[in-house]
Amino acid sequence: MDGIDVLVSEVGPRDGLQSIAPIMPTAAKLAWIDALVAAGLREIEVGSFVPAQLLPQLADTGEVVRSVKARHPGLHVAVLVPNAKGAEAALAAGADKLTLPLSASETHSRKNLRRTHAQVFEEVQRIVDLLSALPEGKRPQFEGAVSTAFGCTLEGAVPQSKVVALAEKLVALGCDEVGLSDTSGYANPAQVRRLVTAVQGAIGAERMTGLHLHNTRGLGLANVVAGLEVGVTTFDSSQGGLGGCPFAPGASGNIVTEDLVFMLEAMGLRTGIDLDGLARARAILRAALPDEPLYGFVPDAGLPLGFERAA
Amino acid sequence: MDGIDVLVSEVGPRDGLQSIAPIMPTAAKLAWIDALVAAGLREIEVGSFVPAQLLPQLADTGEVVRSVKARHPGLHVAVLVPNAKGAEAALAAGADKLTLPLSASETHSRKNLRRTHAQVFEEVQRIVDLLSALPEGKRPQFEGAVSTAFGCTLEGAVPQSKVVALAEKLVALGCDEVGLSDTSGYANPAQVRRLVTAVQGAIGAERMTGLHLHNTRGLGLANVVAGLEVGVTTFDSSQGGLGGCPFAPGASGNIVTEDLVFMLEAMGLRTGIDLDGLARARAILRAALPDEPLYGFVPDAGLPLGFERAA
Repeated sequence: MDGIDVLVSEVGPRDGLQSIAPIMPTAAKLAWIDALVAAGLREIEVGSFVPAQLLPQLADTGEVVRSVKARHPGLHVAVLVPNAKGAEAALAAGADKLTLPLSASETHSRKNLRRTHAQVFEEVQRIVDLLSALPEGKRPQFEGAVSTAFGCTLEGAVPQSKVVALAEKLVALGCDEVGLSDTSGYANPAQVRRLVTAVQGAIGAERMTGLHLHNTRGLGLANVVAGLEVGVTTFDSSQGGLGGCPFAPGASGNIVTEDLVFMLEAMGLRTGIDLDGLARARAILRAALPDEPLYGFVPDAGLPLGFERAA
Repeated sequence: MDGIDVLVSEVGPRDGLQSIAPIMPTAAKLAWIDALVAAGLREIEVGSFVPAQLLPQLADTGEVVRSVKARHPGLHVAVLVPNAKGAEAALAAGADKLTLPLSASETHSRKNLRRTHAQVFEEVQRIVDLLSALPEGKRPQFEGAVSTAFGCTLEGAVPQSKVVALAEKLVALGCDEVGLSDTSGYANPAQVRRLVTAVQGAIGAERMTGLHLHNTRGLGLANVVAGLEVGVTTFDSSQGGLGGCPFAPGASGNIVTEDLVFMLEAMGLRTGIDLDGLARARAILRAALPDEPLYGFVPDAGLPLGFERAA
């Protein structure tokens, strides 16, 4: 990746905001995203094209994508799309990356996307057809994100073979890449190594791109270390740890962007992200959501004395 | 190790209790330790032989050691000793393991132990002489613990060469083993791999025994993963994350025993510790210290649905 070792993909504006009651005004979202871009974030998931009645917090996603694209042409603007209808809206708005979630747990899939696996595959096919109709240079990146990949609060353990088979199916249908999500904070470092390696073996390491980890049981950054060991270079995180999954009971807490960036930079891995800039973005988030809890150890403890950022 | 893969060494009764204002009654300490032993803990640091006026919370350490040894002959009873005087008291009480802290940061050493490195080495020599006078079978284990090994809130970065030299000196003087302490929560996984490997190379892996990590910046368990990778098999932790270092400003939060044991067992590493038993011990701690904050993600989130403990 251009000048960086690890891509930290900020999902707070989507995963964070969809999980809380207050609806952040569009102007506040844009101010927050501006600050994140100023801090050096290169990819931000800015919203989700789901019906407004389901997630009113993200009803302005189309407007947010358009505004952000206009203000930050260099930013990789990602959005979540649950189906082909959402993908059409994402294409119309000009998103750079579409992520479609597929729950390894079919129970969770029905509750979260209200679709069976077969129905999700039909949507994937429709989206691939939509994308294929676009000229080469105009096609956004299309990721299939296997959620509850490490276990499910509704089904419990999820067989590794099931996740591998779903990843293969997504690639076979035409997804550019597959990500794995620990929706419920069930993953442990040994499992991360095993599952990522298995999926890399099945679809190719270049297609097994990212990990979306939660810190529900405090293992978020430990799982990042395991992911780094097996070659993962993209990690989702949320500023202040906002978010989780509103449809997975007990699931809460994306890994905290501030802590993730601190760990990576301390390890000598370049993220391109400035920790002071992240603190400024956090202040904007804090002001916009005065009553929401924000998490993070580094924001509380501060940087080590004499801490040197990676060159 | 007998039937386990990783030794979790509980330091709450020492490192935890020395860091808080309330003085836990001896009977409450014993009830808590009984519950920890019932949960499967094999090594517990039950106190510190420091002057009572410095740490009144631990003034009953001699009595605690005697009672615990009488109640739990199989338990490895560890104590902290700052000097030869403390070691004499530890021997008189019948402790199984003596740990002498040596701060890599001489500034921290003066503030914490009120001694220079040279003065600490004199104490180490005196303790080695005391131990040598004992019959073979009666000698407790003697560990030199290099604190602020990963950085210091007073001096900042600590050169790796300095830590390695101190470890070599401790072994040369007669310490059985050396542990490394991240007193201020400065460590990162890459640094843990580097420093542990360097110390192992200097004194032998069999003498580089344990890591004492803090979660000040949220990297505690990530650092455990790095330690496991380079062969560390003993990790200190504190139930509820009680503790830190009262003489290192900003340092707080040992890694949480509950979260550590969960991670290790989830990874398939046997600790011999029962998570339900830990919950019972936590309830006793909670009742004894009703006003102290207790930490831990797993105690809040609970175990994953269908979680299977390692065989």
